[in-house]
Amino acid sequence: MSAKRVVIIGGVALGPKAACRLKRLEPDADVVIIDQDQYISYGGCGIPYFISGDISSVQELMSTSFHMQRTPEFFQDAKDVRVRTRTRALAIDRAGKKVRVLDLTSGGEEDLPYDRLVIATGSIPNKPPIPGIDLPGVTSVSDLNSAIAVKDKISGGKVNTAVIVGAGAIGCEMAEALGDLWGIETHLVEIEQQVLPGILDRSLAGIIRAHLEEKGVQLHLGRRVIEIRAWEPGPPAGIDDTRLAATFGGGGCYEVKTSDGSIRADLVITAAGVRPNSELARSAGLLVAPSGAIVVNRMLQTSDPEIYAGGDCIEIQHLVTGNPVYFPQGSLANRQGRVIGTNLAGGAAEFAGTVGSFAIKIFDLAVASTGITPQSALKCGFDAEPVLVVQADRAHFYPTQDLIYFQLTVDRKTRRILGAQAVGANGDAVIGRINAIAAVLPFKPSIEDISNLEIAYSPPFASALDVVNAAGNTAENILDGLNRPMQPDEFERCFLLDESSDCLCLDVRGPANAAPFVERYGDRWLNIPQETLNRRMEEVPRDKRLLLMCNSGVRSYEAMRQLDRAGIGNTVNVQGGVAVLKKSGAASRRAQD
Amino acid sequence: MSAKRVVIIGGVALGPKAACRLKRLEPDADVVIIDQDQYISYGGCGIPYFISGDISSVQELMSTSFHMQRTPEFFQDAKDVRVRTRTRALAIDRAGKKVRVLDLTSGGEEDLPYDRLVIATGSIPNKPPIPGIDLPGVTSVSDLNSAIAVKDKISGGKVNTAVIVGAGAIGCEMAEALGDLWGIETHLVEIEQQVLPGILDRSLAGIIRAHLEEKGVQLHLGRRVIEIRAWEPGPPAGIDDTRLAATFGGGGCYEVKTSDGSIRADLVITAAGVRPNSELARSAGLLVAPSGAIVVNRMLQTSDPEIYAGGDCIEIQHLVTGNPVYFPQGSLANRQGRVIGTNLAGGAAEFAGTVGSFAIKIFDLAVASTGITPQSALKCGFDAEPVLVVQADRAHFYPTQDLIYFQLTVDRKTRRILGAQAVGANGDAVIGRINAIAAVLPFKPSIEDISNLEIAYSPPFASALDVVNAAGNTAENILDGLNRPMQPDEFERCFLLDESSDCLCLDVRGPANAAPFVERYGDRWLNIPQETLNRRMEEVPRDKRLLLMCNSGVRSYEAMRQLDRAGIGNTVNVQGGVAVLKKSGAASRRAQD
Repeated sequence: MSAKRVVIIGGVALGPKAACRLKRLEPDADVVIIDQDQYISYGGCGIPYFISGDISSVQELMSTSFHMQRTPEFFQDAKDVRVRTRTRALAIDRAGKKVRVLDLTSGGEEDLPYDRLVIATGSIPNKPPIPGIDLPGVTSVSDLNSAIAVKDKISGGKVNTAVIVGAGAIGCEMAEALGDLWGIETHLVEIEQQVLPGILDRSLAGIIRAHLEEKGVQLHLGRRVIEIRAWEPGPPAGIDDTRLAATFGGGGCYEVKTSDGSIRADLVITAAGVRPNSELARSAGLLVAPSGAIVVNRMLQTSDPEIYAGGDCIEIQHLVTGNPVYFPQGSLANRQGRVIGTNLAGGAAEFAGTVGSFAIKIFDLAVASTGITPQSALKCGFDAEPVLVVQADRAHFYPTQDLIYFQLTVDRKTRRILGAQAVGANGDAVIGRINAIAAVLPFKPSIEDISNLEIAYSPPFASALDVVNAAGNTAENILDGLNRPMQPDEFERCFLLDESSDCLCLDVRGPANAAPFVERYGDRWLNIPQETLNRRMEEVPRDKRLLLMCNSGVRSYEAMRQLDRAGIGNTVNVQGGVAVLKKSGAASRRAQD
Repeated sequence: MSAKRVVIIGGVALGPKAACRLKRLEPDADVVIIDQDQYISYGGCGIPYFISGDISSVQELMSTSFHMQRTPEFFQDAKDVRVRTRTRALAIDRAGKKVRVLDLTSGGEEDLPYDRLVIATGSIPNKPPIPGIDLPGVTSVSDLNSAIAVKDKISGGKVNTAVIVGAGAIGCEMAEALGDLWGIETHLVEIEQQVLPGILDRSLAGIIRAHLEEKGVQLHLGRRVIEIRAWEPGPPAGIDDTRLAATFGGGGCYEVKTSDGSIRADLVITAAGVRPNSELARSAGLLVAPSGAIVVNRMLQTSDPEIYAGGDCIEIQHLVTGNPVYFPQGSLANRQGRVIGTNLAGGAAEFAGTVGSFAIKIFDLAVASTGITPQSALKCGFDAEPVLVVQADRAHFYPTQDLIYFQLTVDRKTRRILGAQAVGANGDAVIGRINAIAAVLPFKPSIEDISNLEIAYSPPFASALDVVNAAGNTAENILDGLNRPMQPDEFERCFLLDESSDCLCLDVRGPANAAPFVERYGDRWLNIPQETLNRRMEEVPRDKRLLLMCNSGVRSYEAMRQLDRAGIGNTVNVQGGVAVLKKSGAASRRAQD
């Protein structure tokens, strides 16, 4: 029997992983990776850090951990895998089991026969239907070529002002990349009313919004880009770099017209998400989902069992909702690559699906998430309840402690945990907590599983009752009706921004903390410290709805229990307390703002 | 019906938690906490940081996150819970449902009637049977009183040299506390041949050992303390502080005789672990396990259903082994306290058990662990395999990356993950990974669950294929026979320390990395870079056992696959590679050392 011939279309993340795994299991396999680009096997998620300058060269994104470049020669020598760059797959002939390819350098075409085929064609950036989106130089940063072009333009001193269209993960990362190290005046335009729409809960998104603004990013939420135009009267003087000229239309400047005013900029980056690059699969008659993603089974076979697909071009199962989902992540691509490699070698490995974990660094804050948000859960038909807690990431008496803003999504009916999201300054601590929740999500954890989740305790690293456990406990209290929550954004709407509301805020913190608020909000903001509440119960008004407030939601919960005992039940507890209001900037917004 | 009377014996961690939870659920309950100490409700695990000076006062260990002191008055005002300090429980009269107590201040005795009783008597430090262990001033640091005395002595400039007996968690933390900020010459004496014996795997313990030595701690492993004596010719001059004199026997200096020489010191701290403080329970006829720990059910009831017990005085179920275990941890005490509080109020909450998670900071390194070590697993009858990997804690191209040394314990027979341990400089990153494993351990995870555990990916926080996933993949490769491992300590024994062994080390790193080793070990250390191995196969000796080496174990695994293909199968892969050998100091130890 001759060696198994395997052709892999796509050489960024999944392709090389599948190839190398296969070769370790079946060294005689004959494996070729083709990619239309000249760059292969790079860390695409590192692009924002390359642009920011944290990573100095693209070579670092293409190097192994032992500092070798993952070039075609490296794959040949170290892995016995052939790589053909600048080679485009034109069509798959399933009956003939061959792939028609075009050599982009020579222009020659040929057929590559296969016994097994892997489609790892990844994603392509969405292009919103905006006039001018195709102007030369209006660009995404979806691959190394575009990233290099953008960085060349920036480092050449050609960019004073930039507009980023879309405040999703890449948009926010790029805002940091441009603003932080390069000092570029950066505008982030988002059609939705929040940053990270669809993937982050509103309360936590408010914290990120405030942080971006604090860092000088010009945020334009709820604004649609209507048109992008080359700015008259033409490019500024001094543009003579022909490479830039070719890429950026003469180094031109742009006018970005939005639904609320125009912004002039030297650089326009689109970051409107990506979609599966599945045209090749579709043309070959493989099953493709309505989302455009290739349909695969758990062994990552397409509707043609001799063709595998994985990475950013496939649809997978969401392990929380049970629904198919398009969730492009370099990490999942790597794990899927190994599964495909095993199966190419005759194994029976499975990829069960995703719990939807992601992490983003945005300036000095980290955001991490797993499972689904309360908003998504409601859409999926769950009786979803958001549970927000704020607590130190280590023992509150340990000097380096900082707050984590942590939210669970809980299903009221089944008391199941559906997801968790967190924001905080200490990224590893934030992400560590989310990873712990992510680990149990496939097992459909109950509230009690989270209340007793065994976070390793030592004062430098955790609280005795960690923020994760506190969130579980709070969820139980809320579902049991002991803690009646009010979300921070609801508090902002019905109290901070509505002076005519007849709610009263009862602040149970110490007088020193409460004083500035009492001064600002007058007799709408009452201060009775929690430890004095039992003996001052007669001072509590019984004819108003009381919004209970402390710094985090913990003492105000205690106060709610005391008030209930005293027969004062028209109360709600503001989740996350003043900590969230301050961090999201709500505490400094007023009705007239 | 009159209010339910609840007496809680012990006011450090579990007692107050149970009391406060009960009061929130059943505000009319009549709750009293008694404690023989004057200090209550403090973070006992913070003691080493108080002694080091990281935490400046004991008040911080007793304060809430909102900076109130948890005094008896605080519990009265804020929680409606009575606390009686300096009140010792003498006996429990189960038939009469009352507790006989002694007021240590007045000397008066009285009976406290109860409807429900909670035993939260905690632990007492083990006192090894060493002559002189009872000398005044030879002390543990098991409570605030002893901690204050030790810190007073240190800050009074009375301690130049200290001996710590026992290199467990507290012993190592104290070594840091004394050495790091105070610059005290610190000797750590341990009867076993490794630090953190019984709780940390040998390979990782070697890393901690090297780090302690690097930080100037004088380690005496494998040495038994035979006697502690007051050092003749008597205490040094200038000791006139009567408080110190009372506590430390005249500020005396000690001679610690060990099985291999004597050490003179101004301070001797015993850190030989703790045992359950269960005498009161035993005397009352409650069921006590052979370990001395009180036996409880999952609702944390003792053999008398009206008496609950929790915290450091009980035995719980180990969720990995299924066996009962004594695992005293402040974090578990807090979680159990809430369960007891719920059940006191008529609920039916359960505490299922522990997966055995812990974390320790030792100078610049963090250690974290969950489940059981390979050594423990073998004792429990598992067919345990250690799986050691070394990988960056974030994308290897991200500037702030650092290595995590990560080990899984895997059962060969069931392919179940039994535990994980990790060491690294970035504590939050290390502990976050262990917490993710801990979260799934109760669900008896398979290797595949770990290979695909969804660590949230972003270059600043994780690798695309995270160290956790890499460990799962390596476990699979080992159990499938593709990767034949050799543990680092075995390599040290049979190669580094045995020059006559006829093994050959085949180093597949680049020449620059390998050169110093080739120079040192001569023709026993052969260098053929992995990417050149296929074309240099004829240089590989076929008559020797080959120990494959790279920097982490990854390229050497690749080489093993290549060698197998070439028919050279007498090879093993040194786990963790040069990274572990260097970090544990093995690479610089020689046969003649």
